[in-house]
Amino acid sequence: MNDRAFEILETKQRVQADNEKEAQNVRNLLREKKAFMVNLMASPGAGKTTLLVRTIRALKDVYRIGVMEADVDSDVDARTISELGVRVIQLHSGGLCHMDADMTKRGLEGLNPDGLDLIFLENIGNLVCPAEFDTGAAKKVMILSVPEGDDKPLKYPLMFSVSDCLLINKTDTCAVFDFDFDACAQRARKLNPDITVIPLSALTGDGFDAWISWLKQQAEDWRNSL
Amino acid sequence: MNDRAFEILETKQRVQADNEKEAQNVRNLLREKKAFMVNLMASPGAGKTTLLVRTIRALKDVYRIGVMEADVDSDVDARTISELGVRVIQLHSGGLCHMDADMTKRGLEGLNPDGLDLIFLENIGNLVCPAEFDTGAAKKVMILSVPEGDDKPLKYPLMFSVSDCLLINKTDTCAVFDFDFDACAQRARKLNPDITVIPLSALTGDGFDAWISWLKQQAEDWRNSL
Repeated sequence: MNDRAFEILETKQRVQADNEKEAQNVRNLLREKKAFMVNLMASPGAGKTTLLVRTIRALKDVYRIGVMEADVDSDVDARTISELGVRVIQLHSGGLCHMDADMTKRGLEGLNPDGLDLIFLENIGNLVCPAEFDTGAAKKVMILSVPEGDDKPLKYPLMFSVSDCLLINKTDTCAVFDFDFDACAQRARKLNPDITVIPLSALTGDGFDAWISWLKQQAEDWRNSL
Repeated sequence: MNDRAFEILETKQRVQADNEKEAQNVRNLLREKKAFMVNLMASPGAGKTTLLVRTIRALKDVYRIGVMEADVDSDVDARTISELGVRVIQLHSGGLCHMDADMTKRGLEGLNPDGLDLIFLENIGNLVCPAEFDTGAAKKVMILSVPEGDDKPLKYPLMFSVSDCLLINKTDTCAVFDFDFDACAQRARKLNPDITVIPLSALTGDGFDAWISWLKQQAEDWRNSL
């Protein structure tokens, strides 16, 4: 039954790049190097870099960390990260809206994964395209920030479907936004029953322990599977 | 001189689709129909639909309005807009991250521009790809929301370069975010000296008069140019 007062037009089939083989090559390389890689995805301004800075501070005495900062243009984030004393490379996508496995492989060649335990790929700020491309990372983590709204799983379903962990960031701003955490988590779990949902504030550190614990556990499980 | 503590790797040249000719066809159609079209672009959750709802309420007695709601999947926004009693069509991009001129043309065929004075194309929530594609719209308007941060012109320069108007939305949340309006406007104007910058809140209506005045003036100037 159709109760819509408007027409729906399918304008284009999804462009599906076959980057499976390259992703497998990246995965093999990372297993060989014993480097656990996390693909971090989010909208612009959701707090990827702030989260990364606090995460690195929490873990840099435990792991040898490397960061690949993907950005359309600019090196603002790589500068911020490099001040923490971890290995970092800036990847310019040249206007492209996502990282694919080939770009990731070339990024890893530039970063040099030798001797690293943990690698973060900070993807382009975009909730659409990065979800479609397997980069070869062991885990996919997405950030949704409170100001973006709890309806985002309905609008960008693929990102929530493919992510292992959903971090709901900027919980410190709850007073000014009408964000329903339960509704958001339910919408995400409807798409992806296995997704781990962690509300936190990368600014204040609230909820951060749960994220750090989850990350360490995943890294340990992955290492044990090698 | 290079003072960077990290390498920059250019991973890929920009994929540039030639959709100039199709955009010109859209432009010709809109001029023939005397329908002023605005391409509205922003990140996910920046407030495109909320802004559109308030804008339509302010203008629906002045103009006959049509809306094309582009979304990856879902019809949440089209439902909201259709409740206002204006002509609306939902465009599904099928996973694509932007609207191009061909999709816009097909959208217009579905919407039917006959008898419309003002058409809004609500683009996919994305600060990267939509900036690269001329849809044939008379004006490009972007929304940046306060929670996203005042550094966004540095990270997504093309969007700020191509937009005629920058709406800085969610000014009602200033108390909890460290957002420097002057710095943001300066960064935007450095990329695009002619950009009009209007801070507003689509939620409270604060600053909305300036936006409505700008829009009416643009529509009038355009109509006088036909």
